[in-house]
Amino acid sequence: MDQNLTFVTLGVADVAASRRFYTEGLGWEPTFEVGDFTCYQVGHGLLLSLFEIDEMTADVGHPTTPGNAFTLSQNVGSRAAVDAAVEAARAAGATVLKEPQLADFGGYHAYLADPDGHRWEIAFNPGWSVAADGTATLRPIEPGEV
Amino acid sequence: MDQNLTFVTLGVADVAASRRFYTEGLGWEPTFEVGDFTCYQVGHGLLLSLFEIDEMTADVGHPTTPGNAFTLSQNVGSRAAVDAAVEAARAAGATVLKEPQLADFGGYHAYLADPDGHRWEIAFNPGWSVAADGTATLRPIEPGEV
Repeated sequence: MDQNLTFVTLGVADVAASRRFYTEGLGWEPTFEVGDFTCYQVGHGLLLSLFEIDEMTADVGHPTTPGNAFTLSQNVGSRAAVDAAVEAARAAGATVLKEPQLADFGGYHAYLADPDGHRWEIAFNPGWSVAADGTATLRPIEPGEV
Repeated sequence: MDQNLTFVTLGVADVAASRRFYTEGLGWEPTFEVGDFTCYQVGHGLLLSLFEIDEMTADVGHPTTPGNAFTLSQNVGSRAAVDAAVEAARAAGATVLKEPQLADFGGYHAYLADPDGHRWEIAFNPGWSVAADGTATLRPIEPGEV
């Protein structure tokens, strides 16, 4: 099984409501929509898709329930960019779980929940970088960098 | 809030046990490890990280509980590649939730769960492609393609 991820699928109560949040609220552009299935490109060859929980249960063949032991994170370039993203998400109807603040990892971050409670972290981490070939690097953050 | 995803963080009961599954079982190479925090590069500038649920709860400031209303998907190039990935995951200790079979979306897929129940779909979808610039495309699958 390769070290690779190409889709993140969110089980949602109502695809239309979730689409309103992501498309109309946040201004995201759908990559592909057919019937109830909507997906958004969120990285190099990476899609985030919305799928009704009942359909997810049928497709998987095992119950799927709302849950939140996972986090979708978005790294941005500054503390101000964290603040701005959180305000944009709040205006779109997100619930802010943790207001922007210094983080235990040494950076600056906030947490918010989409209409189904799927959690996003918005983070400024000056120790994170992506090379031209896509390789991600994490290094410890130095004092005074944030 | 940009249309972007850079991290997927899994809340896990025991990072050491999860690391055994991903690193020793599946052969994945950690990108960064410090203390209990382990992450793997799983795409262009994309990291999957393991984080103990209690620490996740403390970091978020809201309870996080095991849940499964989300799916991590990996697209592969053939039915045989789906079968092979599922066998490799089973050998590593994954629970197969749905054996490889034709899927409602027209392709061929299987579902499995890692030690914490985090669900992966392994899919062959000939309608999915990624351009040189990273743009992902989905088109309907034609009869006979799978």
